[in-house]
Amino acid sequence: MKIAVLPGDGIGTEIVAEAVKVLNVLELPLEMETAPVGGAAYEAAGHPLPEATLKLALQADAVLFGAVGDWKYDKLERALRPEQAILGLRKALGLFANFRPAICYEQLTHASSLKPELVAGLDILIIRELTGDIYFGQPRGRRTAVDGHFPGSEEAFDTMRYSRPEIERIAHVAFQAARKRNRKVTSVDKANVLETFQFWKDVVTEVHRDYPDVELEHMYVDNAAMQLVKAPKKFDVVVTGNMFGDILSDEAAMLTGSIGMLPSASLDKNNKGLYEPSHGSAPDIAGKGIANPLATILSAAMMLKFSLNQPEAAARIESAVQSVLAQGLRTADIWSEGTQKVSTREMGDAVVAAI
Amino acid sequence: MKIAVLPGDGIGTEIVAEAVKVLNVLELPLEMETAPVGGAAYEAAGHPLPEATLKLALQADAVLFGAVGDWKYDKLERALRPEQAILGLRKALGLFANFRPAICYEQLTHASSLKPELVAGLDILIIRELTGDIYFGQPRGRRTAVDGHFPGSEEAFDTMRYSRPEIERIAHVAFQAARKRNRKVTSVDKANVLETFQFWKDVVTEVHRDYPDVELEHMYVDNAAMQLVKAPKKFDVVVTGNMFGDILSDEAAMLTGSIGMLPSASLDKNNKGLYEPSHGSAPDIAGKGIANPLATILSAAMMLKFSLNQPEAAARIESAVQSVLAQGLRTADIWSEGTQKVSTREMGDAVVAAI
Ligand SMILES: CC(C)[C@H](C(=O)O)[C@@H](O)C(=O)O
Ligand SMILES: CC(C)[C@H](C(=O)O)[C@@H](O)C(=O)O
Repeated sequence: MKIAVLPGDGIGTEIVAEAVKVLNVLELPLEMETAPVGGAAYEAAGHPLPEATLKLALQADAVLFGAVGDWKYDKLERALRPEQAILGLRKALGLFANFRPAICYEQLTHASSLKPELVAGLDILIIRELTGDIYFGQPRGRRTAVDGHFPGSEEAFDTMRYSRPEIERIAHVAFQAARKRNRKVTSVDKANVLETFQFWKDVVTEVHRDYPDVELEHMYVDNAAMQLVKAPKKFDVVVTGNMFGDILSDEAAMLTGSIGMLPSASLDKNNKGLYEPSHGSAPDIAGKGIANPLATILSAAMMLKFSLNQPEAAARIESAVQSVLAQGLRTADIWSEGTQKVSTREMGDAVVAAI
Repeated sequence: MKIAVLPGDGIGTEIVAEAVKVLNVLELPLEMETAPVGGAAYEAAGHPLPEATLKLALQADAVLFGAVGDWKYDKLERALRPEQAILGLRKALGLFANFRPAICYEQLTHASSLKPELVAGLDILIIRELTGDIYFGQPRGRRTAVDGHFPGSEEAFDTMRYSRPEIERIAHVAFQAARKRNRKVTSVDKANVLETFQFWKDVVTEVHRDYPDVELEHMYVDNAAMQLVKAPKKFDVVVTGNMFGDILSDEAAMLTGSIGMLPSASLDKNNKGLYEPSHGSAPDIAGKGIANPLATILSAAMMLKFSLNQPEAAARIESAVQSVLAQGLRTADIWSEGTQKVSTREMGDAVVAAI
């Protein structure tokens, strides 16, 4: 089983190193090959997603990804900026299904901005469509406005779009995921304003006929942003488009108060996937050895489960993470009075020891 | 001074009645005329925004709006659904600047989902562009896909767009508002993905040159959704587009825990405006006399200040609201142990008495 390891920028290198260490201790036939991505790849090869990196990702059975981005690349033209690498990988690999769990760990409930009773035991799964919507829709660009409020003036524009098969396949993914959980799907749209999301709502409703055992509710995106704050535990699986999913999955992750713990998976139609922590590259703390590697380690566990068919190895990692939390070990981001502050590497070592 | 009073659906009638009662007690030369809007107008005249209602709104100096919408209209074709009335009014009246304060009242801090220390004293102002973006962009509709992932399949699409003058005028509004507050503007975009919002960011940056005394920060919308949860008090004025503003202003309002208290204003270029509570029509509690009229009463105060040049009358309403809160009077939505539960009408009467 071949894994493309793409550490990227900022804390990416440090956290991916710990995940690789954990994978190595499992004694599975894993072949790991590392390549640069993001700003690191731009420095090394003049492009955030060099051909060699893309080729490696295409050939591998799964991709373990760290994080990309740094303020120092803000001035580069868009096509060369680090985040284009992640957009390019999603598109080239056809990674249309993004799984973003928002889980509140018992020992970390206090870290949330929300009152403990609202988040204790929180376990929701946001499924974000990842290769369609306004992220990739054409045409887009700048032009002279021919209509609107100020015809003749300069304007910029983008195209939002979803086709029936794109909505169908992500809806199936969501209903099937709900069957393994609490059998409830909330489909988030803006059908009251957007043609794209009226269509989304219609198609999700049609697909739902195949899943009479799963409850489907429709919710407007503005209301979803509110209900996540008000009563997050009312959700089970949330399915939505690329743009709304970007916003709501980050909001939900932050509700837990421990985004440093949250993994993510982005899958293609054959369950090949890219796995990365939900948090970013955090350039402000890069190189200090204090980043939390657990989201990346848990992403590696998701990889074993979803793409490499090794559910037992995944479970070993997950219970090792539970056990280091129970031991009271904490990186700075989740530290609180009475627990033991550890470095990135110490946390990785503790997970290895617990396995 | 002529006010178009459009109560609308659900609790709209009840809450607007209290605001009208409060306005009447001020003894100002206000001429108020009521017309149906939303579902109520569809029932009465076959259209959510009948011509007579639109004409009244166009002729008036300001519009006092309740709320529109009810599940029973969900099956109507889009053009006849209640929310089309509000979109139609915004467009016809050119109400491009939406002011959505998110304020946490001292006595209601406990009602927030967030820990009290995170929201105590919260006072942020979200300024949402309201007549552009993907809400009104053309073309939009359904068609057969010619490219994308599934050429030949049915697809739906919308157009996001902003022209330079549209961005410039809302940026000026935001910087000028910040001058009356803490002189900080956060412009929310998704410049890393969208052409429209790269342009947004560029133009806001240019307009900022006229306001060297105001601090400008740029933030991606996904990050803004997170920072609102993590540290809402770090914001002062937030300015963003129609779609992102829809989501973030509702998220911010819900953070306060007392959305029943939050007014809003939507202004045209001459400060003519439409004033409405930030909450919706709440059909589930309509007719029960338990809705909170304070957001609508405070919207009437905003109307006096922004559109009718009566800042003193506005201040009288605002301090009357403070005083009823201090008296311990609460409608059901903000009630807590030790306070006195009152009806919609009793709350309106108490504000009148305090004036
Ligand atoms: C970096 C950016 C392009 C990306 C996105 O918007 O998808 C990120 O926010 C994410 O959610 O993975
Ligand atoms: C009803 C709907 C069209 C409207 C919007 O999306 O603008 C509402 O959510 C709002 O924020 O006023």
